[in-house]
Amino acid sequence: MREIVIGAAQMGPIQKADPREAVVARMLALLEEAAKAGCTLVVYPELCLTTFFPRWYHEDRAEADHWFEASMPNDATRPLFDRARDLGVAFSLGYAELTPEGRHFNTQILTDREARIIGKYRKVHLPGHVEWDPDRTHQHLEKRYFEPGDLGFPVWRSQNAVMGMCICNDRRWPEVYRVMGLQGVELVMLGYNTPTVNSQSGDEGLEKRLYHSDLGMCAGAYQNSTWVVGVAKAGNEDGHPLMGGSIIVDPDGMVVARATSEDDELLVHACDMDKCTFGKTTIFDFARHRRIEHYGLICSQTGAVPPP
Amino acid sequence: MREIVIGAAQMGPIQKADPREAVVARMLALLEEAAKAGCTLVVYPELCLTTFFPRWYHEDRAEADHWFEASMPNDATRPLFDRARDLGVAFSLGYAELTPEGRHFNTQILTDREARIIGKYRKVHLPGHVEWDPDRTHQHLEKRYFEPGDLGFPVWRSQNAVMGMCICNDRRWPEVYRVMGLQGVELVMLGYNTPTVNSQSGDEGLEKRLYHSDLGMCAGAYQNSTWVVGVAKAGNEDGHPLMGGSIIVDPDGMVVARATSEDDELLVHACDMDKCTFGKTTIFDFARHRRIEHYGLICSQTGAVPPP
Repeated sequence: MREIVIGAAQMGPIQKADPREAVVARMLALLEEAAKAGCTLVVYPELCLTTFFPRWYHEDRAEADHWFEASMPNDATRPLFDRARDLGVAFSLGYAELTPEGRHFNTQILTDREARIIGKYRKVHLPGHVEWDPDRTHQHLEKRYFEPGDLGFPVWRSQNAVMGMCICNDRRWPEVYRVMGLQGVELVMLGYNTPTVNSQSGDEGLEKRLYHSDLGMCAGAYQNSTWVVGVAKAGNEDGHPLMGGSIIVDPDGMVVARATSEDDELLVHACDMDKCTFGKTTIFDFARHRRIEHYGLICSQTGAVPPP
Repeated sequence: MREIVIGAAQMGPIQKADPREAVVARMLALLEEAAKAGCTLVVYPELCLTTFFPRWYHEDRAEADHWFEASMPNDATRPLFDRARDLGVAFSLGYAELTPEGRHFNTQILTDREARIIGKYRKVHLPGHVEWDPDRTHQHLEKRYFEPGDLGFPVWRSQNAVMGMCICNDRRWPEVYRVMGLQGVELVMLGYNTPTVNSQSGDEGLEKRLYHSDLGMCAGAYQNSTWVVGVAKAGNEDGHPLMGGSIIVDPDGMVVARATSEDDELLVHACDMDKCTFGKTTIFDFARHRRIEHYGLICSQTGAVPPP
């Protein structure tokens, strides 16, 4: 048995006016709760230090730079790193990254139990749009404020397991899980900020949106025999509702823990990494069953091309 | 609206001793029922003319050749083709194909409404094993009796829609749906013979196996904005139980029809192909969102290679 007790630290809303220090204080409370529950790994949401700012349009992109972190850790987040080191709890969190070269990414990091950053992922599948869209009920400007991630989908060995990350909309793309699956991933950690309302199809409904969120994660878990931990930032941010629905999914694609609120809420599950072995050696033993000679379009063609 | 009324013609068990003519008589009854319900397309299961023979071991593979069809249509199936032409109902069915060169495939065909064969698919993801496996509760010798399909995942235009096929275990592999999705598929038709018991994990249970069957099809439908019609051969074949669970899934990944028996049973649904458009032009507009520069492993590496 290779057990990691994991805490999925769902977070409630963060208002525009909330300072990072107040957010980190909430993260510290979740961390303490997780440590008490025996967790050695805590997963926080996407862009967890600020409100989901891509809903706000700035004609001048630079006006959004104050939502970004120029270094990590920094003054605001150092208390989290320090306390995590004291407690021996590794963590993963998402934030808006501004590089020394002035590039912008939607980023997630992973630490070891000494709070050293051992992994970084930059979101590849940015949803939304670049320009103001008058046809939407609300804006979703990730393609305006970020460039697509340039690091691929790496994995890392930590706590005796193979770990990878993705972010939000990535969870809907089977390529994401598969590229990590081909590297033997046993635990995929992701955070998300998902509006409760589809800005282009308002009658979709929360129930269906939660189902879609589950569907990608459960299929990705099952089809790659990996644990998946998906963590929401949820609730009403300055009048804009985000859905909850944080889940922990086992390597059989079964949901083993689920958030019930749209607020700060910790899910805890003892995840046995050895549970990945059965699928990886039988029905999803890729070496025996995959037929890459028929997959070429996936890597050679970006868009759909229907027959004439 | 581009509506196709589709019949998913689940079939109950076929015993070893049942002659093909008796099976075709059952298929004709389902065809008549479908035509009365307004269907212009009927989907039958995998290997629907015989029992699921890959559960039976023959040391001499040629002894299994009597389960194969050397031509299609042939004497046994011609009544189905003739009646379908009279009724103007297209159909798709699975059978074991023996080619003039002596090659063996697990094959599915698609006809137009004049009963002309317009498409052929040969199963790519063969599950199971080649040699007698004493550790299994029952044998699953598809890798012994078939070679992997050599036709890729083509699509065809028919009845004003883009149609593709896959077979049984293929439905668990996201690559299958994606390769067709990249060709604009709007309807994926598949049949399956899925044992009720996992031969290597007997405590898995029927409920979980039905969930896994749904999961692959619903995720494939949602992630490619396509209809999926999955049709079981079900019930007890000579003491070996096969699960039912035939479903029709809409392009939002929602199950809109589900079989309730393990016997001959027709599901009917009016499938509007225009329902594929929303997903294909928004969240799953591949041209805008896919990042093939990060998918390379999917096409270049067959098996999983964990980090050192």
